[in-house]
Amino acid sequence: MPNDDLRKDLKRVTTKTMADVVELHLREYLKKKSFKPGDALPKETELAEALGVSRNVVREALSRLRMLGMVESRKKRGMILANPDILGAFERVLDPLILDEVTLRNVFELRLVLEMGLADILYIRKTQKDIEELEEIVKREVNKKQKPFRVKYEIAFHGKLYEMTGNDTFLRFQSMLLPVFEYVVDEEIKTSGKAEVGKVTHHDLVEILKAGTPDEFRAGMREHLKPHFDRLK
Amino acid sequence: MPNDDLRKDLKRVTTKTMADVVELHLREYLKKKSFKPGDALPKETELAEALGVSRNVVREALSRLRMLGMVESRKKRGMILANPDILGAFERVLDPLILDEVTLRNVFELRLVLEMGLADILYIRKTQKDIEELEEIVKREVNKKQKPFRVKYEIAFHGKLYEMTGNDTFLRFQSMLLPVFEYVVDEEIKTSGKAEVGKVTHHDLVEILKAGTPDEFRAGMREHLKPHFDRLK
Repeated sequence: MPNDDLRKDLKRVTTKTMADVVELHLREYLKKKSFKPGDALPKETELAEALGVSRNVVREALSRLRMLGMVESRKKRGMILANPDILGAFERVLDPLILDEVTLRNVFELRLVLEMGLADILYIRKTQKDIEELEEIVKREVNKKQKPFRVKYEIAFHGKLYEMTGNDTFLRFQSMLLPVFEYVVDEEIKTSGKAEVGKVTHHDLVEILKAGTPDEFRAGMREHLKPHFDRLK
Repeated sequence: MPNDDLRKDLKRVTTKTMADVVELHLREYLKKKSFKPGDALPKETELAEALGVSRNVVREALSRLRMLGMVESRKKRGMILANPDILGAFERVLDPLILDEVTLRNVFELRLVLEMGLADILYIRKTQKDIEELEEIVKREVNKKQKPFRVKYEIAFHGKLYEMTGNDTFLRFQSMLLPVFEYVVDEEIKTSGKAEVGKVTHHDLVEILKAGTPDEFRAGMREHLKPHFDRLK
């Protein structure tokens, strides 16, 4: 067993594969030449020749960019630069089965910060239809305190708030944060025997959204999330 | 030129490559078998045989997981499941050269929401050293109103706030949000001829952090970011 201190102090030497190097070169090339979405990339054979590597390595590097949504294959036009899907890759790795405790906790803190910060955008973008949908969720939620329901309605309510921003980046957080909700409810049950709830309920938050101010909503959300903030201290 | 309405209504058929399919299969396999960080993956040849595909395709799919930090090569142990770097891939695609206007705007809104939400965690984690560093940034910033300096100190100040959370996920946002800062300052100059500044300055925010409450900090930050929020309306 290696010495743990030594392990911490000496950073592991990470070797780069050819695909790592070619991926970086391609990325820098696209940037230097100011490629824009829609522009056609040089052919695989041309890239391989210019870089002095095999086509397999080029294909491997392009495959990574393709996974990130940075390039797309188009009939008759070959590879083109695309508008990347900025959260696609993030979603792929955000899976509680393979995230360690520290990362899960970090992501949970991200959720708390996002929800404390949402107020202004919610007031700018909220519609009557949004409020009605929130009211519908709250109506169905009443008296469902056991874990599976608690998680389900937590996700429905807070997910709807992300959706109301009309901002695709937030909307995508909804599905990413989903597994983190369940993780936290489980943690709470483990340490205090029950899922904790703040004094301000989902119902109260909807009432504030209807008739209150962003400041009042922030104060309400802070109270709603209080058990979670208390656990951070 | 295809009809634009038709284009919008009919979603483009996206063909999956073999690597897309194998990547998905591997991901599901790791999940179903509850692989944990440190566990060794089956050999490339075994995977190729089980999946009925060539080794090249397996290598391509593993290369993607490697890029996401989900797997690592270890001497004598082959590939092992790693703790993924949840923001690495996000950073790779977050480059204003290739992001369209809508995505840049979405990311900028993400920044506003995060900074409005940071207060509680800042008060839990702040140290005397953090405050001194913020004061140092503010001291150097005074009277630097032109664009390059404005961007530089904006990044230094707001980046330090992310750093103070002690949360690696936020810290990483710092470098991701960097190009977005510059984009927004440029946009402001384009529409109103100058970079707009809220009534509450960085200096004021430090004073609130020293002697005020999270609620006061939130109100101060809201005022500091006011020109940006006004542009959202």
